[in-house]
Amino acid sequence: MLISENVKSFIERGSLVRRMFEEAIKLKAMHGADAVFDFSLGNPDVRPPAAFKKAVLDMMNDDSTSLHGYMPNAGFVDVREKVAQYLNKTLCKNLSKPVGPEHLIMTVGAAGGINSFLKAILDPGDNVMVLAPFFMEYVFYAENHAAKVNIAQTDRNFKPDLDSIADKLNDRTRAVIVNSPNNPTGVIYTKEDLDGLGKVLEAKSKQFGRPIFLISDEPYRKIVFGGAVVPSVFESYTYSVLVNSFSKDVSIAGERIGYVCVSPEIPNSEDLMQAAILANRILGFVSAPALMQRVVPYLLEESVDVSIYERRMNILIKALSEIGYDLVKPQGTFYLFPKSPIPDDLAFIKLLTNELILAVPGSGFARPGYFRLSICMDEKKVARSVDGFEKALKKAKSLV
Amino acid sequence: MLISENVKSFIERGSLVRRMFEEAIKLKAMHGADAVFDFSLGNPDVRPPAAFKKAVLDMMNDDSTSLHGYMPNAGFVDVREKVAQYLNKTLCKNLSKPVGPEHLIMTVGAAGGINSFLKAILDPGDNVMVLAPFFMEYVFYAENHAAKVNIAQTDRNFKPDLDSIADKLNDRTRAVIVNSPNNPTGVIYTKEDLDGLGKVLEAKSKQFGRPIFLISDEPYRKIVFGGAVVPSVFESYTYSVLVNSFSKDVSIAGERIGYVCVSPEIPNSEDLMQAAILANRILGFVSAPALMQRVVPYLLEESVDVSIYERRMNILIKALSEIGYDLVKPQGTFYLFPKSPIPDDLAFIKLLTNELILAVPGSGFARPGYFRLSICMDEKKVARSVDGFEKALKKAKSLV
Repeated sequence: MLISENVKSFIERGSLVRRMFEEAIKLKAMHGADAVFDFSLGNPDVRPPAAFKKAVLDMMNDDSTSLHGYMPNAGFVDVREKVAQYLNKTLCKNLSKPVGPEHLIMTVGAAGGINSFLKAILDPGDNVMVLAPFFMEYVFYAENHAAKVNIAQTDRNFKPDLDSIADKLNDRTRAVIVNSPNNPTGVIYTKEDLDGLGKVLEAKSKQFGRPIFLISDEPYRKIVFGGAVVPSVFESYTYSVLVNSFSKDVSIAGERIGYVCVSPEIPNSEDLMQAAILANRILGFVSAPALMQRVVPYLLEESVDVSIYERRMNILIKALSEIGYDLVKPQGTFYLFPKSPIPDDLAFIKLLTNELILAVPGSGFARPGYFRLSICMDEKKVARSVDGFEKALKKAKSLV
Repeated sequence: MLISENVKSFIERGSLVRRMFEEAIKLKAMHGADAVFDFSLGNPDVRPPAAFKKAVLDMMNDDSTSLHGYMPNAGFVDVREKVAQYLNKTLCKNLSKPVGPEHLIMTVGAAGGINSFLKAILDPGDNVMVLAPFFMEYVFYAENHAAKVNIAQTDRNFKPDLDSIADKLNDRTRAVIVNSPNNPTGVIYTKEDLDGLGKVLEAKSKQFGRPIFLISDEPYRKIVFGGAVVPSVFESYTYSVLVNSFSKDVSIAGERIGYVCVSPEIPNSEDLMQAAILANRILGFVSAPALMQRVVPYLLEESVDVSIYERRMNILIKALSEIGYDLVKPQGTFYLFPKSPIPDDLAFIKLLTNELILAVPGSGFARPGYFRLSICMDEKKVARSVDGFEKALKKAKSLV
């Protein structure tokens, strides 16, 4: 036995996704990649904005000796200053105090940021609340620090159910993770949604005698449709923490660059930041990649061409609705989370696979009875997939 | 209380280094940076080889869509193939089986690699052996996974003391970490040293009924003096794992790129690799940064201009020896680990600080009675520091 019991159990739980992944490879080998509609992976296929390439080339031609060396574990101070300025113009403009570099840590993507922050606040046996359906990696992120997730289901429109949340928060809950625009639903939480959540967290923090953090994971913030607005969590709750990344907003998921920003309104946040920076160091990140940090100031106002995702999404929403699928219209992201026509989402995924359509069952997001489609393929191919969705639906109905 | 008990204890233990860091800032503000001899930080100041810049620019001008997107969590297959080819020509040339991409994971530096590998093998309560003096971050890396370090002291030449190691290995020891060329001593373990260690580990693995891994952390592999050779651990022990990074060898410590290679001779290493790749994903690394992975094939044969470090080292070794310091001559790295003239290394560090010389006490490496000098400053400044070393030594002798 070479591996730990701990990781062994993780691998066993991850086997559903692995089997799907293997199935996908098999199908593509049998039928050709072009014949298979792979809606299973969330790997952005829209190109980064031109500003990205320009910024990397400019930085590489800047011959300062220290460009590629170590810097403070929280990241370059001047880069954090630029991020702070951007946040003070946007998400933090209505706060009582401005964000400064001391509230920011540059991180190895959002995943690195969440892990560093969680390590800073979690002791063994603590809880992290997540709102289902949710990105299942959060389970691992909590368990990395010997904590457990505590799942509250959202309502039928995938919005926070405040009664259920209040009911499930407990004296070991140290944080609630929200993700808006949401993977897998594409739903955006409104200011009212966040205000309501903030009030519940405030009351429960008071009841339990220590603050519950609201961690807002926002890698899809700029991928929104029809001018939709993503409100700032900072305006709804004091103990808020923004985790952002450039993976999807500017399509550089492989470059592992993001940041964590704690609300400047959190009292005495120095200790918290010191702990999170230490965690960022000792988890093995050490720091975010230097060159990508240097590029961040040039990406703050940038995004991919969102209209590409929006056109694909509109094609699929219209077609699936007309065929008879029940769905909540996404306001952003590149995900769609329709209801499975039969309660057994795993069985329905098989019907889709028969039509060479690959999707992820809702069970993989702790919401059985649904399935996730990721539209990381061109619009012509999206349009070609519709026929298969119709056939699968007919077969599903014939089973009921 | 905003932070975890766990991280709070880490911060308290880390306070020695922090106080030194604050002291350094204070001294530089008072006397000017040029007047202070900062031998405390190991941040390489020698420029990366020209091949690095060229490779980054070439890669950025390659417009393949997927260059900056997600890739397999172990890293790009073609990059791993190139690393495997390089290892098969060098460290693995005498093995019974060749290294392939399936034995490699591209990682967020060596720190990311060690953490991913440790997570794959450690359960709570397990032990990781380290040989003192050692890089103290290893303590955190073990504790991240609820394990503990188990310290064996090296002999007076900083070589492995096999009796002490055999004595201290126990049935919870899952790995031994070695670091050659060594931080903080600059010592290189010979083939005989490694063969001896391999025999002990083989016997103890047999005794305890499961393999003890030998993790060889080699970020200074190419920074060697006078043509010194760093032997391959793979040739001395089957259950060997190489962790490498480009941080020091090519001076890109901020870019966070390295790799883990398990010995191709480990039987059934598929599960082990699957676990380590999963760990790399769920710890929040997800993958090593994409662009830096792409650059790796162009760095395999490269190194910084080591003669720069060697000249500085020779100046300091000669001067300190002449003055009367007792030291083991480093064969590589940019560190020197002289004996403190008085047993209390913390007291001696204060005497050095009075001469505006900053150094790290041996206690910070679990070897009291010594101190570490990092020669990341130009040779003229190194030469200018000698006077201060002489004064501090005189004061120390007057105290005895």
